Amino acid sequence: MSDNAHDHWIAVARTVAATLAVDAVERDRANAQPVAEIRLLRESGLLSLLVPVEHGGHGQSWRTGLEAVRVIAGADGSIGQLLGYHFVNLSNVWLAGSPEVQEDLGRRTAENGWFWGDSVNPVEADLVLTPRGDDPAVSGYVLDGTKTFSTGASVADAIIATGTVTTTGEPLLVAILPQQGGVTFGGDWDNLGQRLSASGSATFAAAPVPPEHVVGSLAAEHTRPVASVITPAIQAVFGNLYLGIAEGALAAARDYTTSSSRPWALSGIEAATQEPYVLATYGGLAARLDAVAALADRVGDRIDAAVARGADLSWDERGELAVAVARLKVVSTEVALDVTTAVYEVTGARATSNHYGFDRFWRNVRTHTLHDPVAYKRREVGEHYVSGTYPPFTLYT
Amino acid sequence: MSDNAHDHWIAVARTVAATLAVDAVERDRANAQPVAEIRLLRESGLLSLLVPVEHGGHGQSWRTGLEAVRVIAGADGSIGQLLGYHFVNLSNVWLAGSPEVQEDLGRRTAENGWFWGDSVNPVEADLVLTPRGDDPAVSGYVLDGTKTFSTGASVADAIIATGTVTTTGEPLLVAILPQQGGVTFGGDWDNLGQRLSASGSATFAAAPVPPEHVVGSLAAEHTRPVASVITPAIQAVFGNLYLGIAEGALAAARDYTTSSSRPWALSGIEAATQEPYVLATYGGLAARLDAVAALADRVGDRIDAAVARGADLSWDERGELAVAVARLKVVSTEVALDVTTAVYEVTGARATSNHYGFDRFWRNVRTHTLHDPVAYKRREVGEHYVSGTYPPFTLYT
Amino acid sequence: MSDNAHDHWIAVARTVAATLAVDAVERDRANAQPVAEIRLLRESGLLSLLVPVEHGGHGQSWRTGLEAVRVIAGADGSIGQLLGYHFVNLSNVWLAGSPEVQEDLGRRTAENGWFWGDSVNPVEADLVLTPRGDDPAVSGYVLDGTKTFSTGASVADAIIATGTVTTTGEPLLVAILPQQGGVTFGGDWDNLGQRLSASGSATFAAAPVPPEHVVGSLAAEHTRPVASVITPAIQAVFGNLYLGIAEGALAAARDYTTSSSRPWALSGIEAATQEPYVLATYGGLAARLDAVAALADRVGDRIDAAVARGADLSWDERGELAVAVARLKVVSTEVALDVTTAVYEVTGARATSNHYGFDRFWRNVRTHTLHDPVAYKRREVGEHYVSGTYPPFTLYT
Amino acid sequence: MSDNAHDHWIAVARTVAATLAVDAVERDRANAQPVAEIRLLRESGLLSLLVPVEHGGHGQSWRTGLEAVRVIAGADGSIGQLLGYHFVNLSNVWLAGSPEVQEDLGRRTAENGWFWGDSVNPVEADLVLTPRGDDPAVSGYVLDGTKTFSTGASVADAIIATGTVTTTGEPLLVAILPQQGGVTFGGDWDNLGQRLSASGSATFAAAPVPPEHVVGSLAAEHTRPVASVITPAIQAVFGNLYLGIAEGALAAARDYTTSSSRPWALSGIEAATQEPYVLATYGGLAARLDAVAALADRVGDRIDAAVARGADLSWDERGELAVAVARLKVVSTEVALDVTTAVYEVTGARATSNHYGFDRFWRNVRTHTLHDPVAYKRREVGEHYVSGTYPPFTLYT
Repeated sequence: MSDNAHDHWIAVARTVAATLAVDAVERDRANAQPVAEIRLLRESGLLSLLVPVEHGGHGQSWRTGLEAVRVIAGADGSIGQLLGYHFVNLSNVWLAGSPEVQEDLGRRTAENGWFWGDSVNPVEADLVLTPRGDDPAVSGYVLDGTKTFSTGASVADAIIATGTVTTTGEPLLVAILPQQGGVTFGGDWDNLGQRLSASGSATFAAAPVPPEHVVGSLAAEHTRPVASVITPAIQAVFGNLYLGIAEGALAAARDYTTSSSRPWALSGIEAATQEPYVLATYGGLAARLDAVAALADRVGDRIDAAVARGADLSWDERGELAVAVARLKVVSTEVALDVTTAVYEVTGARATSNHYGFDRFWRNVRTHTLHDPVAYKRREVGEHYVSGTYPPFTLYT
Repeated sequence: MSDNAHDHWIAVARTVAATLAVDAVERDRANAQPVAEIRLLRESGLLSLLVPVEHGGHGQSWRTGLEAVRVIAGADGSIGQLLGYHFVNLSNVWLAGSPEVQEDLGRRTAENGWFWGDSVNPVEADLVLTPRGDDPAVSGYVLDGTKTFSTGASVADAIIATGTVTTTGEPLLVAILPQQGGVTFGGDWDNLGQRLSASGSATFAAAPVPPEHVVGSLAAEHTRPVASVITPAIQAVFGNLYLGIAEGALAAARDYTTSSSRPWALSGIEAATQEPYVLATYGGLAARLDAVAALADRVGDRIDAAVARGADLSWDERGELAVAVARLKVVSTEVALDVTTAVYEVTGARATSNHYGFDRFWRNVRTHTLHDPVAYKRREVGEHYVSGTYPPFTLYT
Repeated sequence: MSDNAHDHWIAVARTVAATLAVDAVERDRANAQPVAEIRLLRESGLLSLLVPVEHGGHGQSWRTGLEAVRVIAGADGSIGQLLGYHFVNLSNVWLAGSPEVQEDLGRRTAENGWFWGDSVNPVEADLVLTPRGDDPAVSGYVLDGTKTFSTGASVADAIIATGTVTTTGEPLLVAILPQQGGVTFGGDWDNLGQRLSASGSATFAAAPVPPEHVVGSLAAEHTRPVASVITPAIQAVFGNLYLGIAEGALAAARDYTTSSSRPWALSGIEAATQEPYVLATYGGLAARLDAVAALADRVGDRIDAAVARGADLSWDERGELAVAVARLKVVSTEVALDVTTAVYEVTGARATSNHYGFDRFWRNVRTHTLHDPVAYKRREVGEHYVSGTYPPFTLYT
Repeated sequence: MSDNAHDHWIAVARTVAATLAVDAVERDRANAQPVAEIRLLRESGLLSLLVPVEHGGHGQSWRTGLEAVRVIAGADGSIGQLLGYHFVNLSNVWLAGSPEVQEDLGRRTAENGWFWGDSVNPVEADLVLTPRGDDPAVSGYVLDGTKTFSTGASVADAIIATGTVTTTGEPLLVAILPQQGGVTFGGDWDNLGQRLSASGSATFAAAPVPPEHVVGSLAAEHTRPVASVITPAIQAVFGNLYLGIAEGALAAARDYTTSSSRPWALSGIEAATQEPYVLATYGGLAARLDAVAALADRVGDRIDAAVARGADLSWDERGELAVAVARLKVVSTEVALDVTTAVYEVTGARATSNHYGFDRFWRNVRTHTLHDPVAYKRREVGEHYVSGTYPPFTLYT
């Protein structure tokens, strides 16, 4: 894992992260649409990172993509989420799409630096796809309905959405291009954390879905193991997101400790950087982060290996991958909650000034780790450990 | 501990808490001066709770006062802090003051429902007391200087302050009445939590200190064990504050779980209130809170017993009390940090909407528990456990 | 709680504990029948501690009895268990027995210093009571069958047993006096911890049950709340047992740290008693033990209050007590497991020599805390916290 | 990491582990010398695993060797320790020895399947090397003195020992062959865990050290970074040892849960393998083990990379390795203590029968993790994280 292209793109991610870090506190507070941030990602080339070279992209691995998510999330959890979701949204094109869809949407994404949002939240009623003529293969559909938690959609060039065809009941994955009209956004995301993730609702009113924007059938995910890799990919983004936020929190704390912390008045220690409890706390947390990072890298490689198996991937291999990702989800959640609370213990009372905004790390982790309950991820891992069974495919497992 | 007066005042505190709870989220966000909140405390009678009956107060115990702090903190951590600090600030009158001072300031407090703030932060340079004439016993002093973290001062009827006399170097405890002029406030408290605690800076410019407002000599705390009980009292307020906030957080989560939470989609459970992991999490946290509450009540009784010993209190008895309070500080800090992070796990993802503001509990605990490092409290408790030694008297131990 | 009788009996318990501590390691290893240990309890008077004065006992409270269990368990977990179980076994006489039974068995217990074992394990098939004649009220029964986990039975003067009457199906509580024959013991208790608790199997072959040894009907526990207090009493013994073992472990570690531990070679610290991590570890654990002890004392008082209510005790009051005891069970389990593993971290590598036997604390706690799963106690507490419901009466709840 | 040779040797280790598992409980109890176990290792070929091919060994990597340690430790912690120590002891030959020493001792080790013990414990006074003639380069030395904690020495074919030359004060690493006489063993290892590790004392009385058994100068470790890799290698053995024991504990618990555990009587669950708390506990622990295993593998690769750098390895590169290993030590210690206590919670009360001996896992981890205090490892990691400094070279860092 030290090839040149990988290192190049991680360096690019670090540069983007450094820019994001400058005003992360202010941007978090403003709760605005992340338009400038998406532009930054676009200009960096990261949005095409996973697009295959033959379609004009950079052809990098999930391993590299997930590490980039982690690096960006260290500076700004919301933007790390948007990049990771983008990778996942776009990957539907390769996991579920035909060669024509791949070439068309892949190339347009790479050429224009498209950012992909989503409107797929599975806990609500489905969006509805109405055929525009007798033969949707010719004239396509229109999409109607509202979905909350449509992350990134309001700032997206393309939105991956799921809808049910009125005439056949078939669930389809479709791409919506907001500039073609028919989409409005609720601007109703005002939550504790991940405030810049543009996760409000999207409402579709006869949004056009030309035939070439039908990515594929959702049913494919239930019949082809490789298509169902989408869920482990999503959950791996989560794990890297939490890890990245936690790494960012600890690094921000270190900057404060070395520049601003005072040793405790009654400790007799001359510098906060020599304080035994502060050092042991840093060490314990850094060690745990290192173990989770080693697992995250290994999981990244496994996703690449699974995708590379293509149609040969078996359900059991898919299941092994899903469990490996679930283990990452569990440990990244635990370490991220602990780190983001503990950073204040190594910085001290004055670090609670809102000038520093160190709470954003905890708020980001606390918010997103509730996406699906970690207790059930533990159970899922445990059930596999005890009985060797794999979780069934769902959009959470 | 089930006498009528105790139960009456706890019921009063619950009523105040219920009022505070109604708009706690909005008030926290507004970050305004807690003028209305202090008025509410005043009208409830709680501000005179610990004033002896002979001086016109309600003559209740520390045990009752600390439980009232806990109840108020459950609804609004800042106002719980203000009530607890008020008890401590005012108690200087009895711990360090002469009978005349006690009668004078005690009675005026009880008659007018005075709220006492402070300006005593020990990590900064002392305020300066300049004699107004040849004999300060006749003409008093003026007070000059600035103190940050002057909790409650900006909304106080009386401020307890510490200053050093220019001519003698003697450190004195004095009462400043803001309505007599010479005091301005920075309004510079914008921190993560305890946002309504009015903890900004106070600047004194020739603020008048008539002789009857000289409470006593700070040196007394170093020579009379009972006067030094002020520190255990402060730290006991902290312990009850953290416990109260945590109790409030768990109760607020319960309201949400029973009214709004959905069981996890893949769990097969019909109601969130029957979800096994949710229930075990509530149970584990409630059990820990119960143990800490039992300790808090015991510590309250011990403070009353120490104060009742008066001049007979020995340094060793004072040391035992200080260690008991330190133990409370340790466990209340731990449980409060854990509870206020875990409440989201029993409420779920939608509870991260800022509409609910459940993060205020974590922010309040996270902010105030950094007052002095809990690692050193653990050490202090450990040193006593291992070697039987008591921490020396300081404003932290 | 500082009355003279209480203090006297706790001092007695401390004396017994000191004697037990001398050879606790050797006795644990020998795994012999605790004959001498029961004699020690008998001679101390502790076996009659809870027998009412009117029946010749010392008439002390559950609060005092449970504290005595804790003190003994600090030196020898097995003997603490035996004393606690004895209190519970014997209390059936007052909770379920008629005035005649109380007077008869109570007085004989007090006069002879009887130790009561049990044979009641509810997870196995019932023992069988066969009437000896037409009218069991005149001629009694004989008891047949085998029960594993008959704690203390093999060294008991009297055994409380439960049996089902062959003719009526009625479940009865009966007293068996081993010296009257018909009982043999398997000697089959060879477990990780609590090795001296004589918890092997008992086999009854036509063991005589004269009418005066019929304590009462088990059905009473289902119809009279006060009779069902037996389960909270059992679980409170457990909580005090775990707490006592943990207190004993930490105190034993302290003795070693102060007498034998060396500071870490690379620490630059001169004495282990000044080592910052050692001190903070002791402090954190001591603080937690203190909170659990405060809860244990409060729970002891509540059992006394419930028993004092007698026939007036309602099911709701009984439920409140059961939940309070469950909370104690949860926190005492947690702290005891943590303390008994952590003691090695404050003593160091040489303390692993079997000469010291510090592992017996962990083994004792680890073994007995599995009696019934703490996860379900957490759930029970949580269910009450969330929904206000009380656990149904069983021999575990 | 899936090359054939690696997989072959891990399969060999699994076969050895399976044999060791059969009577691990009985052998642990017997506390005998591990003669048969060393023979098993010898016959498997594992003792020559890391000997370079050019000296007749199997030429495998540290990564593979450490994974083999982990696999063996899963079945028998003591034998895992002995294998890991053997690798480290023998590696002195390559890290500190001349080409002649490497060829001579390396080849004899490979040809005869030598097992290497040690006598190097740094916390005691040094052993003494007395020259046998005027020129030790011709006639060698004799070794005198006693060292406790001489792991594996009593069953060793060769012992690596450190001694100080009487005439020059130079510290040397020497090989002692017990069959050449002059060595006796105290048989004084009777500790809580790692009971079969033969870690008693060794006494040397004019034990012969011919010139060809002088491995090298200890001073080399202070002047050549690559020679000082010995300490990270030792600590990496520790990390893999703890991880392996924990993995073995959880797997043994799983066997019990699936074969023997009953669901909790009051749970309403039909099988222990479907119990929600049991599954979540397994899952949480398995996830943590997986993260630590990922880190352990990565650390193994880094040791190989450092050794491959040879004389080019810089102190900074050595420092990075040492910190990476320290992080592994921290997290493996934490997870192993937690897992080995928690296994009882997923097996249940009947699993405390000494028939199963599940406590050996906790005893093994609890004993060896005290080798050097993990608090100081946390501090070491924290100091590097905060200030970028590396721990100085010692036999612990």
